Order: sequence, then structure tokens, then C-alpha cells
Amino acid sequence: MAVRHFLSSLDFESAELAALVESALTLKHAGRGRGGLISGAPDLAGRVLALLFFNPSLRTRVSCESAMARMGGSTCQLSPGRDTWRFEDRPGVVMDGDTQEHVAELAPVLASMCDAVGIRKAELLTQDRASSASASYADLARDEFLQAFARHSEVPVINLESNSCHPCQGLADMLTLRELLEEPAGEPFVLSWAWHPKALPVATPHSQLLAAADSGMRITVLAPEGYGLAPDVVRQARERAEALGGSLVETQNPEAALKGARIVCAKSWGRLDAYGQSPEEARPADRLRGAWIIDEAKMARTDGARFMHCLPVRRGVVATSGVLDSPLSAVVQQAENRLWSTTALLADRLGG
Amino acid sequence: MAVRHFLSSLDFESAELAALVESALTLKHAGRGRGGLISGAPDLAGRVLALLFFNPSLRTRVSCESAMARMGGSTCQLSPGRDTWRFEDRPGVVMDGDTQEHVAELAPVLASMCDAVGIRKAELLTQDRASSASASYADLARDEFLQAFARHSEVPVINLESNSCHPCQGLADMLTLRELLEEPAGEPFVLSWAWHPKALPVATPHSQLLAAADSGMRITVLAPEGYGLAPDVVRQARERAEALGGSLVETQNPEAALKGARIVCAKSWGRLDAYGQSPEEARPADRLRGAWIIDEAKMARTDGARFMHCLPVRRGVVATSGVLDSPLSAVVQQAENRLWSTTALLADRLGG
Amino acid sequence: MAVRHFLSSLDFESAELAALVESALTLKHAGRGRGGLISGAPDLAGRVLALLFFNPSLRTRVSCESAMARMGGSTCQLSPGRDTWRFEDRPGVVMDGDTQEHVAELAPVLASMCDAVGIRKAELLTQDRASSASASYADLARDEFLQAFARHSEVPVINLESNSCHPCQGLADMLTLRELLEEPAGEPFVLSWAWHPKALPVATPHSQLLAAADSGMRITVLAPEGYGLAPDVVRQARERAEALGGSLVETQNPEAALKGARIVCAKSWGRLDAYGQSPEEARPADRLRGAWIIDEAKMARTDGARFMHCLPVRRGVVATSGVLDSPLSAVVQQAENRLWSTTALLADRLGG
Repeated sequence: MAVRHFLSSLDFESAELAALVESALTLKHAGRGRGGLISGAPDLAGRVLALLFFNPSLRTRVSCESAMARMGGSTCQLSPGRDTWRFEDRPGVVMDGDTQEHVAELAPVLASMCDAVGIRKAELLTQDRASSASASYADLARDEFLQAFARHSEVPVINLESNSCHPCQGLADMLTLRELLEEPAGEPFVLSWAWHPKALPVATPHSQLLAAADSGMRITVLAPEGYGLAPDVVRQARERAEALGGSLVETQNPEAALKGARIVCAKSWGRLDAYGQSPEEARPADRLRGAWIIDEAKMARTDGARFMHCLPVRRGVVATSGVLDSPLSAVVQQAENRLWSTTALLADRLGG
Repeated sequence: MAVRHFLSSLDFESAELAALVESALTLKHAGRGRGGLISGAPDLAGRVLALLFFNPSLRTRVSCESAMARMGGSTCQLSPGRDTWRFEDRPGVVMDGDTQEHVAELAPVLASMCDAVGIRKAELLTQDRASSASASYADLARDEFLQAFARHSEVPVINLESNSCHPCQGLADMLTLRELLEEPAGEPFVLSWAWHPKALPVATPHSQLLAAADSGMRITVLAPEGYGLAPDVVRQARERAEALGGSLVETQNPEAALKGARIVCAKSWGRLDAYGQSPEEARPADRLRGAWIIDEAKMARTDGARFMHCLPVRRGVVATSGVLDSPLSAVVQQAENRLWSTTALLADRLGG
Repeated sequence: MAVRHFLSSLDFESAELAALVESALTLKHAGRGRGGLISGAPDLAGRVLALLFFNPSLRTRVSCESAMARMGGSTCQLSPGRDTWRFEDRPGVVMDGDTQEHVAELAPVLASMCDAVGIRKAELLTQDRASSASASYADLARDEFLQAFARHSEVPVINLESNSCHPCQGLADMLTLRELLEEPAGEPFVLSWAWHPKALPVATPHSQLLAAADSGMRITVLAPEGYGLAPDVVRQARERAEALGGSLVETQNPEAALKGARIVCAKSWGRLDAYGQSPEEARPADRLRGAWIIDEAKMARTDGARFMHCLPVRRGVVATSGVLDSPLSAVVQQAENRLWSTTALLADRLGG
């Protein structure tokens, strides 16, 4: 029986993801507001989740650790390049440079000591590895380290954000959509680009788009010219949405996008054609700043939409404090759902 | 019911602190010298204490982790700026600088995933953030990040050392005074300044002063001219000591201070009026060095006083090896008591 | 009763080490391939292993954490100089430099809060402490911090790699030899030097040599001129091997060494007389590169020998991918055995 990794939501049917969301809801109802082990969750005593963070993390790190702890399990944190050696993923390479260990050894070794491995490796998130910034999006999106690791691992590998996608965020957002709208299928969802002082990765908006698609929503992607998401992801999101009765359109026109919206999910991301530049070089043009913040005026043009953002969010830049502090904001609920969706995922993978 | 943080010992009655000390004694007797779960302590399985260390730590980190482990719980370590994003605490600020997440999101998110949050954030402890050193003591002592976090958190927040105080050290020292003297009320306690090659924070001496005050001791603060502790802390310590039959005087005269002392607690700290300078710039004058070390001659002038220091201690600088290696030294007992007092505190906050 | 540290395999009889290996085999059979707590292992709930890593680590860190977790215990990670203060180990020194805490306090304090302490401190592994590189091998091999810590600790101290040896690697390798050959005594074992772009420490080859010796093997150390291991270690290894019917010879001739070999253990290490230089300065001569890689041709000259390496291994440099990917390679099994041998060691030290 092949091991079931969790590398991209595209590896799963919409119905499989929906089943995980229902499991997360059950665990949340059992565990929320009560400390301690979650009633009804599997007992993971003695189980170890290794976490390889090549980049900083807050919600992802804490949700993984807390999820394991609340089922009795443990985590083991590794920060490559600081706590450990530097890794190689190219096959057949002569390793006389600055990499010290090949994923062909790393992956089976970790798999022999741990029950699952979570990996965050997203070049654009890494501030101190300028060399990586020279790669194109097409190159980075192959996520070669992650894919090579998964091929060599006999235990489940969880993608904690790669260059192409952030499926744990997507799963949490499916749970939030399910909670906010009860039956999200057919409801209008806007993924709105926002200005940001640095170019950010597209992994999260990709997975947020797919979350709305796997929920069967009527999706509008609202972004300025040149800021389209990866065409193959948009195409697959459209197909998934349509298969569930939803739809997907792209627009640069906020008027059309916001009218009637039930959800506004804000996110900044960088131009795909600027992935070879540093986050500062690829900084979005200042002229976009004023027009692309989510403020009270924009929210007023929706159908009482709830506001979503994956966090961290720059107040006064991506969204106003007025929006973030209003009862329409679901950002804390959304972040908390990282805990419950990850708990459901780990329960499924490790609790058998 | 409002959540009960542990931000400063001044938020509690002396009797409440004394009750925690008695609980710590009970736990110590049950757990000391026996490995494993502490008999009689609450079962914290599945409970998670998040630890936010903006500054290095040894005793604090290990005592928190060990305390949770010995009650079956877990900890989750976060090192802001390295493992996570940089945080903002100013209300209403437009976040287009180098902070990426506001405490208004951070605190409720962590509170949704964890059962309590410990925070160490003390600007003068941080070697690599020169910018912070430009603030005055009055500004720093507001502990704005800690206070803002606590306002936004629905789970208990534990101060693991801020600019103004270090209440976990204070609680441990109350336990040590209780052990060393059995009935410390009315006994003479000397808090003696010591020379050090860098200016150190006042948080720890503040909490040590308050520990003696909440124990009702006859306190002498012995320090050279210009090295007075914060007047409002000294005033409150005096009031608390006097309410329990003790007293508080300040002096620059070692003769008067040491005579009859039962406890000599040594600590170096920087001038309050030099908090705007770097620790090296604010280095105490070399002429103070010889006169302000705690040596065997000074200890001989006391009434067989026991020697206390919070650690880490620079041997041959703050105190002689002769004092530290003598049977009068209680520094290891004092450090071990960090474990038992923190165990009592966490049992109280999380074991309900 | 004196505490039993694990600082060097030379502190134990061969038979004591063999008993640990048998215990590791039993634990491996009970725990391998099944997640969760290991059946038959002691219950370490509430027990804490502190881990002091002065240098990067992967296998050592994960094996210690996983071993504790799979017996219900916890670990507490400390990275000196980053998470904590800088430590002093020289007796009687006046600490007015850049060290902040003496091991005379550090060790008893950690011992009061934890059940055991693992320490990795190997100067040649540390990339950013150029100052240490000025010491000779003879100076470094005294492992003064580790030894001082052990003298001041009332709980077991585990050497996780020092300058002189890496006994946890040695114990794991004894287990692997036991598995690969069933009865390794009297079988031919080759420890072969390999070229590497930096000078590496001798701790691991020392412990691998001793592992073969404590297994009673017929050992050949194969290395170019000038690359002899420490004479006192070689002498003790020879005595131990001979006491069990084995032997030890040193040679520079691969022909003689490889013929009939049942095990080829590859490892690079630096010249002892170059320990005062940086790893780059002491880089082995390029003329050695081609001749000292382990490739298929070399392996073909053995008696179907199994290939061992401690990892991380530079592919195409220390050994060819052909060797590493062949069924003769035991490197992943060897790494996994770090988990089981450490589990046996911790069970022995903490499970009483």
C-alpha cells in the first residue's frame, strides 16, 4: 500500500478534502474550549512528527505542535542550515559544493525515526538565500526538494508550504468557508489581490483559490494587470469549481467583483514574471497601493461579506484596522482552524 | 471570569504569592529526587504552553519545559524574528515597515491554539537590536508588547522577564527565602549591587526586592550613588514589607548594610538614567569594581548570611569563587526553585 | 552510588557495550514498523532529557528526541550562544570576558531540572567559532567542557560527539555490525579514509574503530600517509580487539586492505597535526581525491563486503552513488540504528 503524502490538494478529490473538513469540524466541537487531549481523537502517544522548516513560521509551527500534543504525540523541530546540514536534491550530482547531505539519505533516515514529516520550503519566503531568487517561477514550482523527499520517504510527508501551494492553509480555509456559510457551494467568493511592500509568494493564494473551488463556489479572482496566478492552477480550480456547480472568472474590476460577494479573501502576491528578482526588487508599484487595500468602503459594496486573510497581515496596508477589527473579520477563526484541520489531517494519516 | 495573567507580582496580594510558595513546597517534596510525573500535581496531558523568547534564556526555558513535562504537558518554543515574523504592538500604526504581524492578531491566534503563553521580552537583554536601546527606562518599563498581548489573550500570559520585572524569579526567591529561613518575616535581607562589565536590566532586582518585601523582611538595598532602583517599585516594596512588619532602607554604606544580615542577595544592574545607551556604553565605572564584589570578607561581616544570586553569575567579578563554592551559597537551590515555583504557578493556572 | 555517564566507550567493558547492543536489538524488534510507545521499554513519562547542541545535528538530535518520545518522555533543546548564555569551563578564571555562566553552576542547575543531559561540543564541527580552531588536537581532545560538566552533574551525561569521540555513533555501529554479520568477532573490517573538501573531525572514526574493536573484529585502518588516527585510541582499540580474538593493523595499501573484507566503513577525517587550522585550510590535498573515493571497483575487490558510512555523506566525493544505491549499502540501516541504540542507552540510564 503506497504511503499517502499531503503535497497538494490537487492530489485529492474534492470529496476527500470535504471529508477531512467534516472530521475537523467534529474534532473542533470535541476539543475547543476544553484543554487537554481531544475526546474522540486517536491516541498518538509515542508518535513523532518531524518538522523541517527552511523558512520562518508561526501558525503552521504552533498548529502542528499543538495538534500532535492534543492527541498525545510529539514533534521534532529541525531548521536546516542552522540546526542541521544543508541538503541536496539533484540526482547524480557530485557533492563537492556547500551541500552536505542528499535527500536520498535524509528522507529514509527521518522516515526510520519518525511517523510523518512536515516540510516548509518556499524560496521566496527565505530572506537570506539570495541565490535561490534567481530561479524562475516555473523552476521553483517544481518543488524539487519536497517531491524528491516524498519519493524517498516511507512515511507521510506533509507540505507546510512550498513554492507552488500551501495545502494546509487551503484545508483550513475550506473549514472556515464551511463554518461561515454552512453550505458554501454556489456562493460568491472573491480572492482579492492587495498591495504589499514586498513581493510575496503565490503558494497561499493558489491554495485559497483551490479551497473555494473544492467548496464549489462562484469564484472571482480580482487582481491588477500582470498579477495573474499560475494558469494551470487557475484552470484546475475552474474545473473543480464547475464540477461542483461553481465557476471561476478573473477580473481587474473591483466594482463587478465585489457586488454580491459573501466572502472577500484578501492576499498579496508577486508577479510570476518577477520571481527571479528579490522580494524588494519585485515590490509592487506604489501607484497600486491606495487602490488595492481592503477598506470599509469596499466591504460595503458586498452582500455583507465576511473578510478572510491567512495572516500575518500588515494593518493599514493590506487591509484597514477598521475591517480587521469589525465583526465581519474572520481572520482569527481562520487561523484557529489551522489547528483543527491539521489535527484532522494528522489523525487521518497517523491514527490508523 | 477574567483570565488571570502573571505579569507582575504587584498584581497579587502578598498572601496569594505566599500560597503559591506553599504549593511549590508541596510539589517539591513530592517530586524532588524522583523522576517522572509529580505525584499530586494536576494532569496536563494535551495542554500546551507556548514560549515566546525574544531574548536568550536557560533557567527560564528549562524550568518551563520541565515543569510542563513533569505534569504531562507540552511546550511550544517560538523565537520571534528567527523562527517567526516580527511583531507590532502599536495601535493604529500603518505597518509598511519591518513588522509583519500585529499583536492584535498574534495574541488571539496563539490563545486559540495553546493553553497559556510565556513571554520574555526585555530590550536590554537583547544584544542585536541596537535600535531598542535608544528608549528611556520610563518608556521601556511600560512593557507595551507584553501588556498589549495580555489584553488580547484569552489564556493566561506569564511574564518570563520584561523590562520592569521578572516575577517568576521573584516567586522562586520567595520559595528560597522560605526554605533558608523557614520564617523570613522580620529577618534582615540585603540586596547588594555588584559591578559587572556591562549594564544589566533592573527587572530581576526589582522582583527580588519585591520577593523579600512580600516575605515581610527587613530589607536593605545597598548600591553606589546613582544606582537606585525605580522609585515606584521601591515605594511599593516598602509598603508591602511594612504591611507584614518589615521595612526597607536604601544605603551606599556596606558596613551598616551587612551587619546582622541573614541573606545577602547580589545582583548587578545598570543606572536607570543610562537605559538609552548600549550595555557597553553604560558599563559601570571601573573604580567601582574592587569595592562592589561580594567576597569572603564581606560575608564574614554578616550574621552567617546565606548568599543568593539569580544566575548566571560571573565568577571573580560579581562574587568570588570562594563565596560561590562555600556552604553559605544557595545559588543552585535558588535556580532549582525556578522549577518548583513555576510548576506551582502553571498547576494553578492550567490545572483547574 | 556514582552516576554513570556515557562519555566514551572506553569507560565501559566490551561486554557492557555488547549487552546494550542486545537490549537495542530487543527494543528494535518490539518497536520497528509499529508507531507509538515501544512495548517492553520503560515508561519515561515526566522524564526530561536536556540536549545541549553547540554544533549542528540531524541524526543525533532526531534519534534522541524520538527515543525519548517513544518511551513517553520529553526533551529540552538548548543551543548555547543562541538560545542561552556562553559558558565557561576553566576553574578559577575571572569571568570578565565573553563567557557569562560557569559550568560549576550550569551543570548542577540543569541536573536539578532534568533527568539526563546530552552534550554535543566539537570544535571542528563549528563553522563560526574560528577562535577555537587555533587549539591543537591534544588540547581539544581533553574535551574540557564535557568533562567539567560531567564532574558537576548528578544526572547522567551523554556525549553526543566531542572532539575525541562519538560513542553514540559507535554503539549504533556495533548494533549494525551485529545485524549485518550476526557474529562479527574475527571477521575482516576495513575503516577506509576518504577524501573530502574540508578537514573533518576524528571523533567519529575513533568511535567506529572502537566499535569494531569491541566487536572483536580483524580491523584494518586504511589511510594515506599523515592521516593516522590518535595513537592512544588506536592502541586501546588494538588491545580490545585482541582481547576478543581480533586484531588491528594500519596500512596505506588498498589492495591488501580490501581483499577479503566483509565490511568497508568509509569516513573522511583531517590530519591531527592540522587541527590548529580552519577546515578549509586543512583541506586534504586534491591529489588524494581520485584514489580515495569508495567506488564499485573497490567494493568488487572485497569478499562481498557491506558498505557503512555514518552520514551525512557527500555523493560522488566520499563514495559513488553506485555504491550508496547498491544493495550492499547499509547506511540507512546504520542511521536508523542510532535510534535503537540510543533508546537502549536511555532506557538503561533513565528507566531504573
